[in-house]
Amino acid sequence: MSESSKEYTTRLRVRYAETDAMGWVYYACYLQYFEVSRSDLIRTLWKSYRRIEDEDGLKLPVVEAGCKYTSGARYEDELEIRAKLTLVGGIRLHFDYEVRSVETGGVIATGFTVHCFIDSNGKPKRPPMGFMQFLES
Amino acid sequence: MSESSKEYTTRLRVRYAETDAMGWVYYACYLQYFEVSRSDLIRTLWKSYRRIEDEDGLKLPVVEAGCKYTSGARYEDELEIRAKLTLVGGIRLHFDYEVRSVETGGVIATGFTVHCFIDSNGKPKRPPMGFMQFLES
Amino acid sequence: MSESSKEYTTRLRVRYAETDAMGWVYYACYLQYFEVSRSDLIRTLWKSYRRIEDEDGLKLPVVEAGCKYTSGARYEDELEIRAKLTLVGGIRLHFDYEVRSVETGGVIATGFTVHCFIDSNGKPKRPPMGFMQFLES
Amino acid sequence: MSESSKEYTTRLRVRYAETDAMGWVYYACYLQYFEVSRSDLIRTLWKSYRRIEDEDGLKLPVVEAGCKYTSGARYEDELEIRAKLTLVGGIRLHFDYEVRSVETGGVIATGFTVHCFIDSNGKPKRPPMGFMQFLES
Repeated sequence: MSESSKEYTTRLRVRYAETDAMGWVYYACYLQYFEVSRSDLIRTLWKSYRRIEDEDGLKLPVVEAGCKYTSGARYEDELEIRAKLTLVGGIRLHFDYEVRSVETGGVIATGFTVHCFIDSNGKPKRPPMGFMQFLES
Repeated sequence: MSESSKEYTTRLRVRYAETDAMGWVYYACYLQYFEVSRSDLIRTLWKSYRRIEDEDGLKLPVVEAGCKYTSGARYEDELEIRAKLTLVGGIRLHFDYEVRSVETGGVIATGFTVHCFIDSNGKPKRPPMGFMQFLES
Repeated sequence: MSESSKEYTTRLRVRYAETDAMGWVYYACYLQYFEVSRSDLIRTLWKSYRRIEDEDGLKLPVVEAGCKYTSGARYEDELEIRAKLTLVGGIRLHFDYEVRSVETGGVIATGFTVHCFIDSNGKPKRPPMGFMQFLES
Repeated sequence: MSESSKEYTTRLRVRYAETDAMGWVYYACYLQYFEVSRSDLIRTLWKSYRRIEDEDGLKLPVVEAGCKYTSGARYEDELEIRAKLTLVGGIRLHFDYEVRSVETGGVIATGFTVHCFIDSNGKPKRPPMGFMQFLES
């Protein structure tokens, strides 16, 4: 499956809004960070997810997500989020994520999301041709 | 204007997710609290905002919002949010809010939102008849 | 392990803030819902998590979380979130969650979180005695 | 007061998490965007707000905030947020914000926040010397 994997690394800075009273980033916010890097990957390597929704009439809802928290991130920390996409089976997409501190390089969290393509009626669909070609390129 | 004002008080408990590294509720979260009490007011006294969107094809976007922070709320604090609706002019709705600590009764924040009705094309509309009757009842 | 499991079911209503452009609840928000039911469970069956932080000087950070999305929830849907706590090993807590639609009874999402106790220096600690007694009661 | 005003413009891209079922950015999220540009302004022109908290033992809670929504932003839109700081009176800071679409240049929202300096006991304090010098530079 190595030939069909795509990677992209994005950077962001922790917002005060994302911290909680413990002083660290709230655990659900990492799923937002995953979304940012996933969007960047798809937009940069293929086309924007918004155009997938608008032009192809397809959506990519999350069917499963998971995250392991190794360490914590604080307000103003700069984070590097690496997303890696691999097609799983015929209709599911699997992304793996790794969140690192830019300053120390240490891993803060790792996780994954699984998605399926659905059409405007909510029915599962195969990925569009362009997407398959992108994956195999 | 007293005859056209409607009030509703709702209660909620501060989530950990809503606090920030300062230990208090993050300032933008009060606008979410306003939304909760505004939704409760409309649903209880008239009909659910979701039905307004679905049945009447109308939306109520916010055109202005403001908040003054008198004190702070902490995780697990129980809050009482009072929303008060007054029709302003012909097409704008104005809500006032007051957030109090259930434990002490002290005011934590006050604020307001202004909304207009728009149809599915984004054009401003007059409030539906049922809404006017509700306001004047 | 049945004797050391504790359950609690809480209800909440989906906020507009929690929906996304797809029209459903954003996937990370379910981790907030888990937090609400987890907090309610601990507060109701033992004591508030805030008092655990303040009185016992302990925190309960999340070390792992996961969620499977069976269906979707929309704005204003009333949800029932059942949290179930089981002590895993000596120092880790494991919670399972189930999110159901109050209207249909259908399962919307299931998930879990794993936590450890740490003291104010960030060092892992055994659960306090009171907590053990609560678990075994 | 023109000599003591400072400006900074930051860019960000709308996250899916920040949109709501209406398809636009949820109204409270603009206060997060304000925070991002405010943090960038303070960090770039003076020093990071985190260091202000850590080194000076000062916090800058929001005492008032307001926002006018001229238009709406959608998922993946690139936004430009300009923050402008002006010292108001002796102990209050006032920031003005303007959010524009990078693509069209059109104004999407404008707003403001007012802050005071407090010490670790929550008592109002005058701004630290370094801050005054920064403002007057």
